Amino acid sequence: MSIQQVSSFAAGQWITPGAGARNIASAITGDVIATAGNDALDVQSMLDHARSVGGPALRALTFHDRARMLKALAAHLNQHKQTLYEASFDTGATQNDHMIDVDGGIGTMFVFASKGRREMPDGQVYLDGDVEQLSRHGTFLGQHICTPLQGVAVHINAFNFPVWGMLEKLAPTLLAGVPAIVKPATNSCYVTELAVRLMLDSGILPAGALQLVSGGLGDMLDHLGMMDMVSFTGSANTALKLRSNPVILENSVRFVAEQDSLNGSILGPDATPGTPEFDLFIKEVSREMTTKAGQKCTAVRRIIAPDAQVEAVIEALSARLAKTTIGDPRLDSTRMGALVSNSQKRDVLEKAAIIGQEATRVYGDPDNFTVDGADANKGAFVPPMLFHCADPDNAQRVHDTEAFGPVSTVMGYRDVDHAVALVNKGQGSLVASVITHDPEVARQVALGAGAYHGRLYFNNRDSMKESTGHGSPLPHMVHGGPGRAGGGEELGGVRGVMHYMQRTAIQGSPDILSAIGQTWVPGGTEIKGPAHPFTRKFGELAIGETLHSPSRIVTLEDIEAFANFTGDTFYAHMDDDAAKRNPFFPGRVAHGYLLLSFAAGLFVEPNEGPVLANTGLDNLRFMKPVSAGDSIKVRLTVKKKTPRNEEYGEVRWHVTLTNQDDEQVAEYELLTMNAF
Amino acid sequence: MSIQQVSSFAAGQWITPGAGARNIASAITGDVIATAGNDALDVQSMLDHARSVGGPALRALTFHDRARMLKALAAHLNQHKQTLYEASFDTGATQNDHMIDVDGGIGTMFVFASKGRREMPDGQVYLDGDVEQLSRHGTFLGQHICTPLQGVAVHINAFNFPVWGMLEKLAPTLLAGVPAIVKPATNSCYVTELAVRLMLDSGILPAGALQLVSGGLGDMLDHLGMMDMVSFTGSANTALKLRSNPVILENSVRFVAEQDSLNGSILGPDATPGTPEFDLFIKEVSREMTTKAGQKCTAVRRIIAPDAQVEAVIEALSARLAKTTIGDPRLDSTRMGALVSNSQKRDVLEKAAIIGQEATRVYGDPDNFTVDGADANKGAFVPPMLFHCADPDNAQRVHDTEAFGPVSTVMGYRDVDHAVALVNKGQGSLVASVITHDPEVARQVALGAGAYHGRLYFNNRDSMKESTGHGSPLPHMVHGGPGRAGGGEELGGVRGVMHYMQRTAIQGSPDILSAIGQTWVPGGTEIKGPAHPFTRKFGELAIGETLHSPSRIVTLEDIEAFANFTGDTFYAHMDDDAAKRNPFFPGRVAHGYLLLSFAAGLFVEPNEGPVLANTGLDNLRFMKPVSAGDSIKVRLTVKKKTPRNEEYGEVRWHVTLTNQDDEQVAEYELLTMNAF
Repeated sequence: MSIQQVSSFAAGQWITPGAGARNIASAITGDVIATAGNDALDVQSMLDHARSVGGPALRALTFHDRARMLKALAAHLNQHKQTLYEASFDTGATQNDHMIDVDGGIGTMFVFASKGRREMPDGQVYLDGDVEQLSRHGTFLGQHICTPLQGVAVHINAFNFPVWGMLEKLAPTLLAGVPAIVKPATNSCYVTELAVRLMLDSGILPAGALQLVSGGLGDMLDHLGMMDMVSFTGSANTALKLRSNPVILENSVRFVAEQDSLNGSILGPDATPGTPEFDLFIKEVSREMTTKAGQKCTAVRRIIAPDAQVEAVIEALSARLAKTTIGDPRLDSTRMGALVSNSQKRDVLEKAAIIGQEATRVYGDPDNFTVDGADANKGAFVPPMLFHCADPDNAQRVHDTEAFGPVSTVMGYRDVDHAVALVNKGQGSLVASVITHDPEVARQVALGAGAYHGRLYFNNRDSMKESTGHGSPLPHMVHGGPGRAGGGEELGGVRGVMHYMQRTAIQGSPDILSAIGQTWVPGGTEIKGPAHPFTRKFGELAIGETLHSPSRIVTLEDIEAFANFTGDTFYAHMDDDAAKRNPFFPGRVAHGYLLLSFAAGLFVEPNEGPVLANTGLDNLRFMKPVSAGDSIKVRLTVKKKTPRNEEYGEVRWHVTLTNQDDEQVAEYELLTMNAF
Repeated sequence: MSIQQVSSFAAGQWITPGAGARNIASAITGDVIATAGNDALDVQSMLDHARSVGGPALRALTFHDRARMLKALAAHLNQHKQTLYEASFDTGATQNDHMIDVDGGIGTMFVFASKGRREMPDGQVYLDGDVEQLSRHGTFLGQHICTPLQGVAVHINAFNFPVWGMLEKLAPTLLAGVPAIVKPATNSCYVTELAVRLMLDSGILPAGALQLVSGGLGDMLDHLGMMDMVSFTGSANTALKLRSNPVILENSVRFVAEQDSLNGSILGPDATPGTPEFDLFIKEVSREMTTKAGQKCTAVRRIIAPDAQVEAVIEALSARLAKTTIGDPRLDSTRMGALVSNSQKRDVLEKAAIIGQEATRVYGDPDNFTVDGADANKGAFVPPMLFHCADPDNAQRVHDTEAFGPVSTVMGYRDVDHAVALVNKGQGSLVASVITHDPEVARQVALGAGAYHGRLYFNNRDSMKESTGHGSPLPHMVHGGPGRAGGGEELGGVRGVMHYMQRTAIQGSPDILSAIGQTWVPGGTEIKGPAHPFTRKFGELAIGETLHSPSRIVTLEDIEAFANFTGDTFYAHMDDDAAKRNPFFPGRVAHGYLLLSFAAGLFVEPNEGPVLANTGLDNLRFMKPVSAGDSIKVRLTVKKKTPRNEEYGEVRWHVTLTNQDDEQVAEYELLTMNAF
């Protein structure tokens, strides 16, 4: 078998391994299968290339352009995933593990593509939150915007998910408009290299958007500046070393870390044996222990059960773990493969021994277990190991020692507060889970433990059919955690994109804010179009284009007719005395929906035209009651335009209803779909 | 004059100065006026007190409780502000400066009190963003929550704003539910001590919520853990030292820094002499140079003008600066007081000399200027100094040397891109401003410079009457900046409160999410109340209480009657052929507003009762068209309750309209005001 040369991709060139390259062994056989690294890699030219070529190219695109790019990349990888699966077995992973890594990574990219289109504008400025009223007359306003960092994101990834680990950072980075330099862990970098090759060969990405370092990073971090950032996944020790880099500290370089985590799973007090929750707990915990041979940042390391259920948990879990066939991951029968390397195996056994100082091993013997189809002495195999800690309050190691393999410790709790105290003893984790059918238990844990964990996962009979698993970070939800887990945050939809952007407070006049955000702000200049805006196509409408309607008197007969027609005979509309007793009304007033309906009658252009449908309405507020004899008129302004497909786009209209004294009686945003 | 003993407030006790105390001199006379510091301060007991007494007391309150507490504190300080003014003169500040500090600080607290009531729930969990649909059938959902850090916030403040500097950090901290230990800069700590005394004496705060260190912090930072945080304002050097603390790095202690900043102000290319913008620019820049004797983190340090206007700017600015009367700040005629200390004066003169290596001083001579009513040789007085840098592209010091006094450098630019490049040479600032009436210039600067600055301030003839000034951080807008400015962020409304909370992703069933967020989530259990919900008072209604209405057939006559009544004869309702050509409709369909109106008719209880008014509607989406002959029915569920005053509160109802096939045709949230 030939040894694979794992290359880097630097400043547009593939660089094969050279001086300083390191050999990589198969996790299954221990044989050298690949080599990676080159001391001659020119890190400064990589940074320059990203900053001067990749960054400007990405920033010239809109969020929607970049989202479409992500979708195309994900679809391309999806077509080639079989080759990624095949390359992944030597990392020790099973086909099931590959799907978490490969399909999970591709799925993450698809979600960001979708969120980019649905939740971000087809422009270059993301608006964060509402306009702030900073002045009485509205001539000076505030707004927050996000724009891409004008540097490069350096991604330093862990060995366990060579594809997902790259894509979960890459998707938000590219969507933000920032180029990336990806540095996978050397142990499994041959899988990442293949995924990078696939993406680059697709021709979908602009030059400079993606570079790869296989092997060591050299002194790249010493060359980072204030517009760059580092996103790291790996051990707390390495994270501490990197984040202490003087250049990073001096330049306030953003450093996001996702590191050690002693994740706990709590069996709710209600989840006694015989309940669906007890069975669910055993199933989830055993899966979390053995998937990817326990090499998951989010794996369950601490199993926290009511004192009365500790024995039952150990028994049920041991029985289930006994069914975990260990062996060559290429065999269909194998349920758990190998650790990534023999060095990791040594590390896991050392950490298990440390845990053994405070806990008793109750399942699994690393010196005596069966491996199918491979040599247990050559490959990096270990069995699942379950420990029991009898005195978790006075223990320390079980709460701070992360054995990065199929190793977990059972401990008992007295009541929910005690369970919260125990799970928090991890001093910051990525995820804690609670299997309970009692919403009050869930609330108690959320209040007591929320601040210690990046994610709280609850599951029970109601959600178990559709739940995604304690260990699965989802692109929609933040991933990361405080304290020991690194204090960082990734993913979480647009939140994850914002990590690669700078939030800037903008202050100025309505016209200034409108121009920057490409969104009309009340008080801004009204543009008079050449015709009724409903007769104008999506592409013809200008931001700020405004229609002023004629006015219409609202009569008592209108109010009564509307009440009788709709059945809405609420007292404020029908009973003058009762309405007068109400703190809001001077007497009988018109229905809010009557005003909305009359407003539509005042502003619509009835003939067939580019307006296809009224799809919704947002932020309606009634500001002043309308009595019989008052009149209303409407101002309708194009606030924002968002293309939705090849045929039509959404127009968001700002609508203001005023009365005969020009006082605002209602304000809202109307959504229509308009043909191109 | 007796020397004031400036005390600390530690673990419930006032501690007078002791061993290690430092003398503090008047900025005006140079005489010692106070002493502060005590080496025997027990920092561990302070941390313990905050964590075990203050934190639990604050966390037991709701956001609204804490907001009311802030409002009471602000009102109390407001009553006593005269004493704060009087104590502040010896810092060198004028009455105008005091108002920025004292009134600005109190105003910030009022804004947080108001935002806490309006934008946060009357509960203990803040919901960040919408529910995420993680499953096809909606039995497993996601949501993000924020809960308070269960530690202590250590606030290390700068000398320039002894009141505002404390309150702008304290308001969001207390609103979050986190206790604070405030450490003001020693130079002006006697003003802060007075403000703390006023707040503590008011009896408004729970024990342990607020402690004070006058003098040195000792080794407090070495005792911080993952639930604590540090919020620092001061020099980049000190920030670097503190953030390099191994305990802070190891425990991922949040460290927010607001440090040096070479803020720039750009005169737009359109703002030629004779325009309102040119005059505005001169006025703003001279004010930013001289307010607080230039000791503002946000002061204008670099004046960036079109090459053609450099001379005119220097001339106009010099003329205006010449009117700045310098002297004892107690004199009414004084426009600019002293720097805070003679040591600061030495520092400013040193930094000005460094700037002088690359720029020519064109106004102000520190060896020759007039001081009214004080001895220029004893007090810390300096004149405003204006420099001109002829070659800013090749200069470095003018872009990285912060002379923390009334010192600024004029430089010319060729075009807007060049202005952007120059302002970005500061390598990260708190604020950059642009005086322009051209929205396209504003957009170009926002795209090019947004990522380098925490705030971009635009001003022109439209906004100048109401604008708040380049240098004023507002509680609504984020304050902080990337790179040299420290990479931190404060304020910004609820964003600033979130810095003291942990964001946690929550996953679970609708009932679990509803219980945690105290907000009904679709799919959650529906509670059948004892009577129509409109007959139930605010306090009686349960989250999840649900009404199912009878159904009503929508006829063609209804559609026509509604069209004729309202005037909304849009083709989709009136013209079957045209509607069929539309991609959304099967033929003529009912008006969306007709459905809303009929829905109200179906669910209202007409008689006088606790429902006072329909105040608004949010997130309405029409999901499926309704044709003549279809029927609709309504499900109305209490989603969320928010008290608004002593008499009534807002009820947010989740409303779903379904047709005869139980398909959703519309969904929205309805707002009503309900009596207690």
